[in-house]
Amino acid sequence: MTLKNFKLAIAYDGTHFLGWQRQKESPTVQEAVETALSRVLAQPVVLHGSGRTDAGVHAAGQVASFLAKGNRTPQEILRGANSLLPLDIAILSVTEVSLDFHARFSAQGKLYSYDFQTGLTRDPLTHRFVWPVGPGLNWDLMRESFPYLLGEHDFAAFQSHGADVKSTVRTLTKLELTAPQPEIVRLSVTGTGFLRHMVRTLAGTLIEIAKGRQTPSDLTAILESRDRRKAGRMAPAQGLCLRRVYYEDWPF
Amino acid sequence: MTLKNFKLAIAYDGTHFLGWQRQKESPTVQEAVETALSRVLAQPVVLHGSGRTDAGVHAAGQVASFLAKGNRTPQEILRGANSLLPLDIAILSVTEVSLDFHARFSAQGKLYSYDFQTGLTRDPLTHRFVWPVGPGLNWDLMRESFPYLLGEHDFAAFQSHGADVKSTVRTLTKLELTAPQPEIVRLSVTGTGFLRHMVRTLAGTLIEIAKGRQTPSDLTAILESRDRRKAGRMAPAQGLCLRRVYYEDWPF
Repeated sequence: MTLKNFKLAIAYDGTHFLGWQRQKESPTVQEAVETALSRVLAQPVVLHGSGRTDAGVHAAGQVASFLAKGNRTPQEILRGANSLLPLDIAILSVTEVSLDFHARFSAQGKLYSYDFQTGLTRDPLTHRFVWPVGPGLNWDLMRESFPYLLGEHDFAAFQSHGADVKSTVRTLTKLELTAPQPEIVRLSVTGTGFLRHMVRTLAGTLIEIAKGRQTPSDLTAILESRDRRKAGRMAPAQGLCLRRVYYEDWPF
Repeated sequence: MTLKNFKLAIAYDGTHFLGWQRQKESPTVQEAVETALSRVLAQPVVLHGSGRTDAGVHAAGQVASFLAKGNRTPQEILRGANSLLPLDIAILSVTEVSLDFHARFSAQGKLYSYDFQTGLTRDPLTHRFVWPVGPGLNWDLMRESFPYLLGEHDFAAFQSHGADVKSTVRTLTKLELTAPQPEIVRLSVTGTGFLRHMVRTLAGTLIEIAKGRQTPSDLTAILESRDRRKAGRMAPAQGLCLRRVYYEDWPF
């Protein structure tokens, strides 16, 4: 029986999960999806995610891949797994891909969003997905910070301790501010790769700038310092969402 | 000590509540807000809501009023109560109003929204607030239905049994379809008053029309029949949100 390689796009509300990655404690998203797929395919399924997301972080387009035997079609896998998954996880698409595709190693870039809520009071209808920063911030200052961050830099100052990576040099290809809903400002960050907690530490530092406590040009010194203590505090998990993982469709 | 009258605007994620109205079983939104206000004001507080919302229905602008003694300012009440309330309820504003204001009896109209999710698969990031109806519906047919519903009609066919009201005549002043987010279609319904389950039954019937199972002009016969069985099935609670209650600001 031949082996097939499948690529999944997955969305989840991370509020009640300990993150993507399977670990000793439950629940994790990977474990939930693997359990559903194993039942549908009647064989043990091991998922390769494009990367981890932290506890409480959401995804609108996480990607994972897995190898499986048998004749189940992508559509059967999609419907079967979704019927078994809890409502806070959904498989958005299943496609058969060539055997050399690997969700992590084939990834060329990722798009994350970080949503700030700018109302006077908190909003019960969005609170699971935003960081309430209140009104009156200077978003122009945040926008003026983008040129200091775009391109290839050593982002060691924006990495949490305990991460074990060979290089802390990463490339940001696009930074953008939009307003997807009233009272929500969305920071979108596209790059070829990200260090541990990098987007949340960027978001926290950019909020310091939007509050006038640091200036956009301070970012040059922060980057050059390679010192985590120079950057701002890490923004909370619930504002972060992995929107998209790019493969052949990477536009940069 | 003089009595003051306060008006509250309240938002809530209704997912985990048995509705607005205090009752034997818990939790209800009214009970949660009354408990918080009673603590802040150190006196028993009885809220008058603009009207009930069903179990699982949300609010972005429910209004309630209450009488209280003492010198607490609106701002102190707002901050104090919000610090005690769970994250799925927030008081958005507190204002002192004249003693003759009553959240229910002074109301001149209400705006409800009903959100349909039109993606191929369900969406974990919005599922608490939408009815997933899938892609391919004819929204133009829904829009063409609006003239049959606007204005004063006997909406008995759109009322759930068990309601005890003198008249089933109501006036709809505005119907609108918008797209607040990708893959979400929002039906906004403004009127001077609503019967029990009326917006959800309208939403369910309009989806039958958008699916081509009934035609816009069928609405005339449904209204004239005054027969609940002629209208469509009631749409689920989680798509409904009480957006606004109008008082002196009623534009119609």
